[in-house]
Formats: sequence, C-alpha cells, structure tokens
Amino acid sequence: MSRDAWNRWGEQDERGALNHIGSAQVQSAAGLVRSGTVLTLAQPLSPRTPVPRHRAGIQHFMGRDGGDYAAGARKPGGFQFAEDTVVLPLHIGTHIDALCHAWYDEALYNGFPGSGTRSTGGATRCGIDKMGPIVGRGVLLDIVAQRGGPLPDGTVIGAADLERAAKAAGVTVGTGDIVLIRTGWAEDQARRDMVSFDTEPGLDLEAGLWLAEREIAVLGADNFAVEVVPFAPGTVFPVHQRLIRDFGIPLLEGLVLRDLAAAGQGAFLFAASPLPVVGGTGSPISPIAIL
Amino acid sequence: MSRDAWNRWGEQDERGALNHIGSAQVQSAAGLVRSGTVLTLAQPLSPRTPVPRHRAGIQHFMGRDGGDYAAGARKPGGFQFAEDTVVLPLHIGTHIDALCHAWYDEALYNGFPGSGTRSTGGATRCGIDKMGPIVGRGVLLDIVAQRGGPLPDGTVIGAADLERAAKAAGVTVGTGDIVLIRTGWAEDQARRDMVSFDTEPGLDLEAGLWLAEREIAVLGADNFAVEVVPFAPGTVFPVHQRLIRDFGIPLLEGLVLRDLAAAGQGAFLFAASPLPVVGGTGSPISPIAIL
Amino acid sequence: MSRDAWNRWGEQDERGALNHIGSAQVQSAAGLVRSGTVLTLAQPLSPRTPVPRHRAGIQHFMGRDGGDYAAGARKPGGFQFAEDTVVLPLHIGTHIDALCHAWYDEALYNGFPGSGTRSTGGATRCGIDKMGPIVGRGVLLDIVAQRGGPLPDGTVIGAADLERAAKAAGVTVGTGDIVLIRTGWAEDQARRDMVSFDTEPGLDLEAGLWLAEREIAVLGADNFAVEVVPFAPGTVFPVHQRLIRDFGIPLLEGLVLRDLAAAGQGAFLFAASPLPVVGGTGSPISPIAIL
Amino acid sequence: MSRDAWNRWGEQDERGALNHIGSAQVQSAAGLVRSGTVLTLAQPLSPRTPVPRHRAGIQHFMGRDGGDYAAGARKPGGFQFAEDTVVLPLHIGTHIDALCHAWYDEALYNGFPGSGTRSTGGATRCGIDKMGPIVGRGVLLDIVAQRGGPLPDGTVIGAADLERAAKAAGVTVGTGDIVLIRTGWAEDQARRDMVSFDTEPGLDLEAGLWLAEREIAVLGADNFAVEVVPFAPGTVFPVHQRLIRDFGIPLLEGLVLRDLAAAGQGAFLFAASPLPVVGGTGSPISPIAIL
Repeated sequence: MSRDAWNRWGEQDERGALNHIGSAQVQSAAGLVRSGTVLTLAQPLSPRTPVPRHRAGIQHFMGRDGGDYAAGARKPGGFQFAEDTVVLPLHIGTHIDALCHAWYDEALYNGFPGSGTRSTGGATRCGIDKMGPIVGRGVLLDIVAQRGGPLPDGTVIGAADLERAAKAAGVTVGTGDIVLIRTGWAEDQARRDMVSFDTEPGLDLEAGLWLAEREIAVLGADNFAVEVVPFAPGTVFPVHQRLIRDFGIPLLEGLVLRDLAAAGQGAFLFAASPLPVVGGTGSPISPIAIL
Repeated sequence: MSRDAWNRWGEQDERGALNHIGSAQVQSAAGLVRSGTVLTLAQPLSPRTPVPRHRAGIQHFMGRDGGDYAAGARKPGGFQFAEDTVVLPLHIGTHIDALCHAWYDEALYNGFPGSGTRSTGGATRCGIDKMGPIVGRGVLLDIVAQRGGPLPDGTVIGAADLERAAKAAGVTVGTGDIVLIRTGWAEDQARRDMVSFDTEPGLDLEAGLWLAEREIAVLGADNFAVEVVPFAPGTVFPVHQRLIRDFGIPLLEGLVLRDLAAAGQGAFLFAASPLPVVGGTGSPISPIAIL
Repeated sequence: MSRDAWNRWGEQDERGALNHIGSAQVQSAAGLVRSGTVLTLAQPLSPRTPVPRHRAGIQHFMGRDGGDYAAGARKPGGFQFAEDTVVLPLHIGTHIDALCHAWYDEALYNGFPGSGTRSTGGATRCGIDKMGPIVGRGVLLDIVAQRGGPLPDGTVIGAADLERAAKAAGVTVGTGDIVLIRTGWAEDQARRDMVSFDTEPGLDLEAGLWLAEREIAVLGADNFAVEVVPFAPGTVFPVHQRLIRDFGIPLLEGLVLRDLAAAGQGAFLFAASPLPVVGGTGSPISPIAIL
Repeated sequence: MSRDAWNRWGEQDERGALNHIGSAQVQSAAGLVRSGTVLTLAQPLSPRTPVPRHRAGIQHFMGRDGGDYAAGARKPGGFQFAEDTVVLPLHIGTHIDALCHAWYDEALYNGFPGSGTRSTGGATRCGIDKMGPIVGRGVLLDIVAQRGGPLPDGTVIGAADLERAAKAAGVTVGTGDIVLIRTGWAEDQARRDMVSFDTEPGLDLEAGLWLAEREIAVLGADNFAVEVVPFAPGTVFPVHQRLIRDFGIPLLEGLVLRDLAAAGQGAFLFAASPLPVVGGTGSPISPIAIL
C-alpha cells in the first residue's frame, strides 16, 4: 500500500527524494554562506568506533609503515611511504543508507524487487553508487536546545517537537531540505563507558511522515537509527520502512552536531558525497556544513 | 634542506597547505556558484576498480541481502534490510593522500618522525583524520584541451603547460586554490582492455613546484599519481616527496574530470571530505564541483 | 534421480563418504607406516597463490611486527611479539570442498535444501565444520608416471587410466580410501609465467563414478578442479555435481604430489583436518602423508 | 645468555624443537594406534569464537550462497555452488605459534633479527610456512584429573604437577614428544556468559623449562596462553619468551581436550599441520589424536 513517491520521478528512478533538490535549491543554498566557516559532521573511524553488540567493527591494517623503514626497508630514490587497508562495514560511524538498505513486502523504493540484491555485486537497483553527491540547504532542528539537554534514551521526538525546533531556528522546512535532528544521544554516549544501541531517543513514525510530507531530500540525526528505539509496539524500524522505501528518503546516521548547534545558524549550505561502492547498501560519509 | 612550509603554521600543525584556505576563501568560492549544477568527480568503487599489478583491489561482501529473504529469512515486523562490508585499500580509485603518506629522510611534513607511523593505529601524526573537510575554490587546468586530446603515456606536463591552461581558463592560480589537472589518462584508459599503471602523463617536479609556490591548498589530477611516470632519471615520486612532505600539499588522485571540463567553467566551488580513519594514510573520496 | 548415497548413513548425516572410514580402516592405515617419513601435500599460501582471474587472492596483514619495535614500540617485561591476519578465500591453494559447496536441483547431499546456505552463518547443513578430521589409507594414482610426463591441458583421465595407475601402484582401490590423482598440472604451471585456470587435465565423469562406486571417502588431485576442463559439452562441473552432491565425496584440490610420487609408496597413512569454520563451504588444508 | 637450542640444528635452522622428531619417533608413534579412534582437538571457528577484548574476531562472508539461487541466480549446466571468505586472525581459536611469534632482545629463535619481520610479507625467518607438518607421539598430561576438577583462574601448574600427571598417565616425557596440558580452562569458560582472558590457570616458567629440558617438540594446552596469567611479578609471557625463542618450541593454544581425556589413553599418535601462510606468525590448526 504505501507508495508515496513511487513513479514520481519515473519508473527507472533510483535517487528518490534527492530529486527534490534542483539547481535552484543549490543556488539558493550557496547563498546561505556567511562567515565562511566549514564544519565536519563526521565521527572519527577506527577500531574503537562503537558498533552494536555482535556486529563487527572496523579493522585497520598497515601494508607499509614507518616501522618497516626503521627495520631497514629499502628507499629507492629516497622515497618512503605508508599505506593501509580497512575492513569497513558500510553502516558504521557517520554513514548514509542507500535506498536499497531497507524495505518491506519484497519491494524496494520504486518497486524494484528485493531479490535484485544478491551476494555478487550487491544491489542491482538503488545502490549507493546511484545516489550521487548531496548539496543543498541543511536545516538543523536542535531538540536538545528545545528540551534543555540531551534526551533520555527512549524519548520520542514527535512532529510537534520538530515544529517547535524549526520555529526556534527561524526556518520553514520545505522541498529539498536536508534536515538534521540533534537528539544529544551521541554526546551523551561519549560520557559513558560503553555505548548502548539498545535504546535511544529518536523520531516516531508520525514525525518522520511530517518531514516526508514537506518533501525533504535527506533526513539525518546524531543517533544511530534516526528513529526512536525501542520501536512502537508491533513495529520494527517503521521510519526506515516508510521513509526509505516509500518516500525514497535516505537516512544519515551517527552525525556529530554539537559544534553546528553551537554555531547558532539554523540553515546553511550542506555538502556530502558517499563513496560510490557499486551495489553498496550505504556508505560512511563525512558531511560538511558551510556557514 | 627542503622544508618549505615547515613551521609556517606552527610546530604542531598537521594540516599543511590546507591552512591556506581561510574563511575569506570559502566565502569567495561560494560566490562562484552560478547554475547550481553539481558534479561528482569520483570513479565508482568495485572489485573492477583498476589497481596496479600485485596490489589488491576492493572486495565487497554482503552480510545480508535479498537472496536471504528469497531463501526464507525471517522478517520481524515486516522489516527487510541489506548490509555489506568492503575490504578497502585507502589508496584506490579516486582518493586523497594524507600528509603521512609520503616522505624522505625519515621525516614527514613539519618534521614529524616517520617512525611515528606503525602497525597499530597507523600514523600518530598527519593522519587522514587530521585533514578535515576541503572547501574552497576549485580550478580546472585542462591540458587535454590545450593539447587537443588525451596525452600519450609518459608525456611531461611542465609549468608552461599549466600557465597556458590557466590563461585559457581565465584563472590566476593563487593562495588556497584546489587545482585539478586533466591529462585525459583515465578517459584514455577506459578505452583499453586493461589499465596500465607503468606509465602515464603527468606533472614534472618543476610544474609541481610552480603550483606549490603559488600556495595552492590541494593538487589533484585524473591520473593515478599526479606526476609523470616514468619519473625523471634517478628520482622516485619526486612530486610526492616535495609537495606532500615539504609543502604539506595533499594529492588527490584518480579524479573523473571529463564532465567538469565539458561544463567549461574554470573556477568553481569545490567540496570534498575524506573518511576520518584514525591514523589512516589516505582515503577514497568523492569530490564535488558546484558550478 | 541421482541420490546414490543419500540416506545411507541416516537422514541427518552430513559427513557423506567419510562414513566409509571406520576404526578398522584407521588401524589398518596406521599399519602402512614404514620409514616414518612425513610429507606435506600443501602449497604455500600467500598473495602470490594463483587464483582464477576475477577472483580475489589472499591478503596478509601484520598487526604487529619487528618494524614496530625498530621504530620504538614498548616491550613490557622485555616481551616482543608479531601477529597477523589474513583475508582468506576458503577455496584457495590446497583446499577441501565441504559437502555444501556444490549441488544441483536446489538440493545438497542427503537432500538438504540449498536455501539453507545464507549470508549470515553460511551453511546450516554440510558445512566444513561437520566434516571432522580425515585419517585413513591414502592411495596415489600417478597418471604422470603412466603417461610419461605432465598431461597436456584438457587431457581427459578416464577410468581405464585409473585402473592402470592403481595396478602400477600395486593397490586395489576400495572402501574408505582417500584417492589422490597426480596429473602434473601444478608442476607444469610452476614453469609458466602465469597460471591458467581455463583448461587443465582431469577426470571425466565416468572416472569419477568409477571411484565413487568403489566407495572411496575422499577424492583429491594436484589440479584445481579434480575434473577435466573444459567440461564435456553441455555439462558444468559434472564431477562436482555427482560426487559431492550424490555420493557425499569431498574433493581435495590443489595438492602437491611430486615428492609423494617420488617416494614410490602407493599406499600410506593419510591425515588432514580442515579448519572447522562454522557454516563454511570449504577450507584451506595441509594434508600429510606418513610413509 | 639464553640460547639453549640455538645452533643445535645449524645456523639456518627455522624448525627448532620439531627437529627432535625423527623418523624413528614417527614409526614408534604410529605403533600407538590401537582402537583406530580419531579425535579432533580443535574448537569451531566462527564470529563467536572468543577473543580477548579489543582484539578482532573472525568475520565470515559468503561470496555466493543458496539465497542467490532462491533470488534467481543463473545455474549454467544445472551447477549450483556456494563459496566464502574469512577475515581470520592467525592467533585465534585452536592455533599454533610460529617461532617468529615471540622473542626478546631483538632476536628470534636461532638469533635471527626481529627486524626481519615487516609489514610486507611478514616474517622472513621462522614463519609458519617453515614449520611443516607435526606428526609424533602425543602425550596428555591431565591436570584436571590430578586436581579433581578444572583449575581456578590464576592457578600455577608447576613441574611437580607435570611429573605427577605423567606418572598417572604411565608415560615418561621424552625427546620429540608433543605434550598437551589439560587445565580445564576452556571447559570452565564454556559455562560462563563471557570468556575472560585476564586470568587463567597455566604453567609457570619452571614447568615450561622442565618440559624443554626433556626435549619435547611441541607444547600445547587447553587455555589461551599455555602459561599462567597473571604472570609472575616483573615478567610478561615468560614461558613464551624462553620456550619459543630459546628452545624453539612452538606453543599450541586453545586445544579441546575433554574427549581425549575421557578416552584414557595417555600416549597416542598425534598429527597436525598448520596452514603454510608465507611469513605468517601462526596458524589456526585442527590437531588430530589417533588412538
């Protein structure tokens, strides 16, 4: 039943809500640059980057390093170098979900069959390689500021919270916006010994749909799932199911939003670009806010 | 001997020539946006991404895919998902070299010891996690247009070529610029059965120094080493040695520049942001040109 | 249709023809030890281990090495160590195929559904972890000696060849035998610049069935597929299909048999033990001949 | 200082105490086979295989599986297959340490420099590829039986314990023996929620030296370090340092010994064969006891 954005940009479309961003939106977003301040919204990536239990983290291997030279490695022409390889889960740290990442009823966004994603080559449809760069108006909805502090785990952020936060930021959420929600979860986790992924503050489905109806292009947050955990009874990742699959809205997770919040500019030029892993279901990403 | 930029930004600096980009440069670069067109400059990443012989390519593994559901995997709450992991060399496809990537005489940029890069944790100094986002004025120097076609393998691009190309673009290369060189190598390789890394057109050292003296922030190209291969007799990666280590200029390799060249805009807003792998020596990257 | 060994050892059996080896066979095989000579039948494993085109080879990463100490790493209590990690395809070099590795008509050996092998956890049935150690009478059928030299690529080894080789070895192939076929392919490849996997000498289906009917436990060879390549017209891996899936006979590939052949002992104590990767479809293995 | 076995088998020797096993020992060990019972002494390998905190476990990726066929993958000639790749730390589960794994004073066994082990290619000396197969007399010293149950964490096993256990087994430990120590640690850990590697029962240095002086070939145990943890004050892995580096005795860790103990046969034919990873510092291994 729910195919809210299917066919809106043609039967073969694999970019979904990113189509809401046209050149006019980009021009207008470029005009938001004032101070020339550039902020990264990405977590560092390392074997210490937190992952849910029973999932593997990053492994980082040096193929050549300074120790090799200390131990006597040759230096033809004086040249010395270091290089490395990572074993990198694509949904780790600050990352974006491709439209092939989540679905229901065997159909992805725009009706492509889920069975088109297989072991060899990954997703034939809606892979992260189809997403392309994301440039547009970023909007920060700072729920921490609204609530006066990081939200306790399990706190539901509803549509009314989003409306209040938008009003406080002096922004009207609209077509093509890249909306970033600050819950304070990551900032709060940093103070703990061990990161828990079992519960977190986040959006309920109503809030997600409120944004989808405003035709946003991307939804991001500083928690790990955008949506509230635990889920509403009887549902599993309802915001993922509806926003990714039915509206074609990519989710951007694990953002670092404290410095952006401190800068006090509710709308800004946003730029991010996933690694175009062919058939990939997502990508670690280092988004930029240009103020 | 050669420590052209060492200490310029303090003894502890790990960002090198990126310090040439201040907020004024960012503001000014944002003003270059005209049509609102957004281009990616990145190659797709897959097991087919070419690598030099005897180096390993990417491996892409699906941890969950549509086939699992076709085979009967459970769907709690109707939720279906796919996820994946890559084994990813950090210097593959379109990527940027961190300042710890290349050095000589046991010292990295700014005098940090090469022995600070070890197996565990990688680079303690000048890792890719220290680089941060790159936003500024992009400048395209289209040598292919100058020469009337892709350059034959081994062709030297000298300072005079760069001057001519800048003039043709109506641009004066200056402080904080992100300079992109189009050699046509990648476009030419795409027409061959197998990519050769043994020889390619690229900059000679004089051309590299010409750019360094103009205080550019980043140097990129559409070949795999920026500099010409084979190297000048008796030298090995001379441009890497001098620009990265002595001037702190990161090299951006494997760019896709054909569409940017076709757009005919010599200066534009450039944005790119490496994965902040702690201690990493580089990062695959998906740079954006905003026209 | 073809279910030659299904249910022979019960509906839940996952060990197939290895059930042909009972304690009597082990006792008897131990009695074959004469000189006390021990030979390995395994290739070295490294990034240079040949693999078919478009398949990935081994990657070997050092997590700690002597270079780190040369560069100044701490040595608490004087202790120094080195450790490493491999990215290891399970069907590489000298390896054994688990009974879940090959099948047809959606059913594995003993009728288990092919759909029981999925991304998470691999094979629920007939994984390499169900195989256990292999100890019994090894029999070398030296076709190279029969033919007077390594067999040209594409040469068919038929049942008559096996009979002749068994006669020459003074052995009657029988229940529970671990039969090793020397084609000379690997020895011949070692003399070439690049290993070709497109064609090789090996068994035809008739020869494979001849062995299966003699109730052997394991079939091995010094080529990469045991069977002849190219396959008989209209067939793809017919020996794999029938022997693994219908007879439950594991295939042991990539053996090194020259020294064993030179030893001139046709029957010997054989011991090998796969890595018990839970749900794995095979394992690199280092078989031993004890003469 | 301590070079107890250096030069004993020549300046270029890389096999150490394994040289204690000659063909006479193998012949004699083969004569220990009675019932023809074959036991594996290996743990299963999977992402659940316990590892010390902050070390990475195994990752197991399917490159092709039954789900792909369920989703419609082609089956040329009817052939279906599954294959997989593991990211495999070489010191995990049941594994053997190569002689390059541990050292002190910058020198490995037989005086080879520690600096010969580097990022590229690993160990040039004493790598696991130099070890070869291990076949000989296995001896089980069952300390659990001696003490009447699994040893509490941190319990020291001394030389007197070994003597008593040998006596109970009716065995005199001697030249070329492969000695396996049962501490009960693994069996005890299996009953806990989470495996702790911070403390375990094991040998003290005196016990290790007692065995070394008896000219054993290999020392194994069912714990993760063979030696007691915590170490004696002021020492770090003293048994590793002395036995591996000074006596050339490989350590075999993480054995599964319960079934072997239950079988009640103190001496048996032992066979194991590491993966010959070129330059590797160890190997997961699946040892076999043949009773």
